[in-house]
Amino acid sequence: MRTSFTLDHQDGLARAGVVTTARGTFTTPCFMPVGTRGAVKHLSSADMEDLGAQVILANNYHLMLRPGADIVETLGGLHKMTDWEGHTLTDSGGYQVFSLEPKISDEGAVFKSVYDGERLMMTPEGAVDSQIAIGADIQMVLDVCAALPSSDAVIREALDRTILWAGRAREHFLAHDAAVGKQSQFGIVQGGLDLSMRAESAERTIEIGFDGYAVGGLSVGEHRNEWHEPLLAATQVLPADQPRYFMGLGDPAGIVDAVARGIDMFDCVLPTRLARHGTLLTNEGRVNLTRREFATSDEPIEANGPASRWSRGYLRHLLQVKEPTAARILTMHNLWWLLRFVDDMRTAIAEQRFEAFASDVHERWA
Amino acid sequence: MRTSFTLDHQDGLARAGVVTTARGTFTTPCFMPVGTRGAVKHLSSADMEDLGAQVILANNYHLMLRPGADIVETLGGLHKMTDWEGHTLTDSGGYQVFSLEPKISDEGAVFKSVYDGERLMMTPEGAVDSQIAIGADIQMVLDVCAALPSSDAVIREALDRTILWAGRAREHFLAHDAAVGKQSQFGIVQGGLDLSMRAESAERTIEIGFDGYAVGGLSVGEHRNEWHEPLLAATQVLPADQPRYFMGLGDPAGIVDAVARGIDMFDCVLPTRLARHGTLLTNEGRVNLTRREFATSDEPIEANGPASRWSRGYLRHLLQVKEPTAARILTMHNLWWLLRFVDDMRTAIAEQRFEAFASDVHERWA
Repeated sequence: MRTSFTLDHQDGLARAGVVTTARGTFTTPCFMPVGTRGAVKHLSSADMEDLGAQVILANNYHLMLRPGADIVETLGGLHKMTDWEGHTLTDSGGYQVFSLEPKISDEGAVFKSVYDGERLMMTPEGAVDSQIAIGADIQMVLDVCAALPSSDAVIREALDRTILWAGRAREHFLAHDAAVGKQSQFGIVQGGLDLSMRAESAERTIEIGFDGYAVGGLSVGEHRNEWHEPLLAATQVLPADQPRYFMGLGDPAGIVDAVARGIDMFDCVLPTRLARHGTLLTNEGRVNLTRREFATSDEPIEANGPASRWSRGYLRHLLQVKEPTAARILTMHNLWWLLRFVDDMRTAIAEQRFEAFASDVHERWA
Repeated sequence: MRTSFTLDHQDGLARAGVVTTARGTFTTPCFMPVGTRGAVKHLSSADMEDLGAQVILANNYHLMLRPGADIVETLGGLHKMTDWEGHTLTDSGGYQVFSLEPKISDEGAVFKSVYDGERLMMTPEGAVDSQIAIGADIQMVLDVCAALPSSDAVIREALDRTILWAGRAREHFLAHDAAVGKQSQFGIVQGGLDLSMRAESAERTIEIGFDGYAVGGLSVGEHRNEWHEPLLAATQVLPADQPRYFMGLGDPAGIVDAVARGIDMFDCVLPTRLARHGTLLTNEGRVNLTRREFATSDEPIEANGPASRWSRGYLRHLLQVKEPTAARILTMHNLWWLLRFVDDMRTAIAEQRFEAFASDVHERWA
């Protein structure tokens, strides 16, 4: 099942479209909340329905360790297990594995489980298999993500090995007829901040041929604007009729900058992590609810949304005394805000006023 | 506003009735979920509405320290602050203060704040004042709760001081006209396991005259059945037309035993605390969800209720990896189960089959 992308509106390079998979469709630009271990922290699939989320992310690395990909499969796969009828996407977990400083070879990456210290190997083929068992609508290839800054040699090695692994992952995936009928598989473009390596990585990934394309290894520590040109070098090469996904980006200004360069899909733990620490996404920009001035505020965070019936003063109190109710309500708020934000962006693209929308966002968020 | 109790049905000493306050009415037997710091852990007032809770407890001791009774008052009082239109009750927090081994005199109890170590004094009058500021529908007097077992002398001293404080608290409360029009105040019967001291404490508390009566200092470490007779010694004396509240009891068998002795109202952190640790209240008794056998179970905890759309296997996984979503869903389940349990008990009393209901409960829970 090749995932298709249909363009509804375009404004500059910004796209408003529809992604079609074996499960159905979702609209873009799309923000995908992250439920690493099978749940967005503090929320359930019922909450995700209330929020109108379209795609939920989960992580292959975490689920293959706990409860185990076989257990997820026994429980009916990710959708049935979480009772979620919307779309799902699993990241391979390469990013998590590489944060553990694994021993890496062309075969795969050897790492220690964070749960029990067991020595394990993740291979491109193994990541395909466990993601088939988990059964998300979209699975990602195992890639090599170099930290930034890195030397050209390190970026080059990561690029070449990502391509090598992508080829093996694609072949392995296509050999599973049952999976191919239900799942899509996305390749990942690497190449650091080097424009020609980004373009080369995109071209070689397209050559292998995937159902959609992600851009990885950007917004991983470099200055906020340094990734703009490398991203554009990749998206200019990527096919117009397939979805494009910027991995791990979730701040409003960054999302706008990536959409301006042709990206359709986003994920990030930022909005949910910020919520747990009391930082709110609002129409006036970031609000730090722990500030003393809010202790006696009887105003809601915003007039609308899932937190609007409670005051800032009350929510600040719950946050200060570490009541988990605060984390839950603020998580609901931040996701609601960000999902509405990408919908508003979609409308701005449709109405050919994306540029004005973008400068407005930059004023509040950059 | 004297809280009244109207009897709808009686079966033996078990009562099914209606409590009327300035706010309105609630039915009994009634279980009151505990939201110590202004929220039941992991839940909001919206969730309490969904669960059909009638009364939510909060704790004066915790709220007077954080955010401060004055801040709760500034935020409109407990109901407005939490956006909860049902009933509320605040415990004075004596139980919490006495767990801190305070320096106690007839004047009051000197203790150190758990938040910042500040040395503070809680007096009967002060507890009335802060509970007026917090503004729950029902406030409790500051009592002295002796641990069990204790010598007769210790029980006697606690009883006498509780009566002394109750008289002062009542006088202080009645001097606040605005509070009297909105709030009710309950006295607390002490007396350890001694039948005559329990009866004496009840009589002397009634003599002072309150809007309702609680029984404290039972089910605080003694054997499960040891409190039956002392409780009866108190309830036999308490007026029939006022509500009776057993403080800090939440296990199904205990609730049945107390209702059998004329109690109407209950509170306990047990169902919510058990939930956070994976112990579930079900029609088959307690279920420990962490047991390995549930890892691959695609059965729900129970066929109905707020957790019924997810499998035991999925919820066990979330619990094992400490996802807060598990604590939330399981808390919802346990409260739903216990609120339904007391409603079922009410029906059993109405249908004159309380004894059969009680033996059935004992079989599963004792």
